[in-house]
Amino acid sequence: MRNLLFKISYNGSNYHGYQVQQNALAVAEVLQNAIEQVLKVREDIVGCSRTDTKVHANCFYFHMKTQANIPPERMVVAMNCHLPDDIAVLECIEVPLEFHARYHCIGKEYLYQIWNSQIKNPFLQNLAYHYPYPIDVEMLDQAGQALVGTHDFKAFCAAGGKEMETVRTIHSFSVTREKDMVSITICGDGFLYHMVRIIVGTLLEIQSGRIPKDGIADIIQSKNRRFAGPTARPEGLYLNRVIYGGEWFGKA
Amino acid sequence: MRNLLFKISYNGSNYHGYQVQQNALAVAEVLQNAIEQVLKVREDIVGCSRTDTKVHANCFYFHMKTQANIPPERMVVAMNCHLPDDIAVLECIEVPLEFHARYHCIGKEYLYQIWNSQIKNPFLQNLAYHYPYPIDVEMLDQAGQALVGTHDFKAFCAAGGKEMETVRTIHSFSVTREKDMVSITICGDGFLYHMVRIIVGTLLEIQSGRIPKDGIADIIQSKNRRFAGPTARPEGLYLNRVIYGGEWFGKA
Repeated sequence: MRNLLFKISYNGSNYHGYQVQQNALAVAEVLQNAIEQVLKVREDIVGCSRTDTKVHANCFYFHMKTQANIPPERMVVAMNCHLPDDIAVLECIEVPLEFHARYHCIGKEYLYQIWNSQIKNPFLQNLAYHYPYPIDVEMLDQAGQALVGTHDFKAFCAAGGKEMETVRTIHSFSVTREKDMVSITICGDGFLYHMVRIIVGTLLEIQSGRIPKDGIADIIQSKNRRFAGPTARPEGLYLNRVIYGGEWFGKA
Repeated sequence: MRNLLFKISYNGSNYHGYQVQQNALAVAEVLQNAIEQVLKVREDIVGCSRTDTKVHANCFYFHMKTQANIPPERMVVAMNCHLPDDIAVLECIEVPLEFHARYHCIGKEYLYQIWNSQIKNPFLQNLAYHYPYPIDVEMLDQAGQALVGTHDFKAFCAAGGKEMETVRTIHSFSVTREKDMVSITICGDGFLYHMVRIIVGTLLEIQSGRIPKDGIADIIQSKNRRFAGPTARPEGLYLNRVIYGGEWFGKA
């Protein structure tokens, strides 16, 4: 038995998220189908995270325990032959049998892309949120620094969230601009259900003046979802980086 | 009667080219539908060019003669409300009644994008051609300089081309790289049917060694389509710039 760790990237536009579900196509199902075509056996796979419908991943990991002895680098080529154009396997390595893609993840970075121009961009359909009013990038970057640190983020957790424990540590937060594209980047040890999208919705309320510039600390303290902004649309959101401890690699 | 000139941009992935045709959706038809919704009258429109199925435009112009007296800047906003996400109106100005978007075009620039990495990019589906083998950008840039100047490009014209006159002037040609994206840019006074795609197909044959580095001058001289390379796929091609004489503008 071996444990293979796959690094992938996907465009979530046509999928109902990562996790397999009934009556709707998910990324994990397409991956399992491709694995079955390569190995001639259907294997269970365990993802590092869930992603919502239409959310993208620049980087995502899953592990798979298998009896198959195909070399990992051969698995990359074979999988890419059987996957559609919107899912790519970037890397595959062997890891210790006890490695778990979700439990051993110690941090994640999300990116939210906003196309900030009066006119939509026909090439960013489903790849960025179109916001046509001016955005003050420095002001929002400053406002969001209140998120950094260890806090109870209950106010930034959707009602459907199943997390009992709502304390998380945010390592870094930034808002940057490159021409008409505004990028919100947030890195932390973990995220609650819809947390990044509610943070983005809150920042846009700060931009429009409906929430004060220094309001984020108060919203955190309130622990009340209704003080935060609305949940931003999914299509601008990318899982951008997934962090594991270095102790797992290079010793399978 | 007024003559309005529209500057637009479109993602051609879902269209059978610009020109209206039976039994297949074209960009021009979608534009006419949006105009009809705004002005309550169906108007004829004249494009600066044709584009093939799946070909994109970063920049494209069409003119429309109309009795309507809606201000041009209002037309931009109204059209964008009625157009799908993959077509955008960037600008609308009034031009002299005798201005013609096709006849008065004095030059065009095309861009061909190649994703040059072993692994496909899930976010560039339909937006770039995936070529997984190494590309020597400097060598191809050099090889393509033989295109610059006034030549009979009959060898680079598809069999279906209706052009009687096959002499064209190419003003500039370049191959550049930004990380894994290779861009081929070609500017000229006009282009024959499939000419840019056959040039790209020929360059990839030079890359793979099936046509010699200095072979382009001989192919031009042959005036024979079968000496040039195959027609490259449409999804990497963008109409990038359209040039009119400055005498037309600012005096409607």
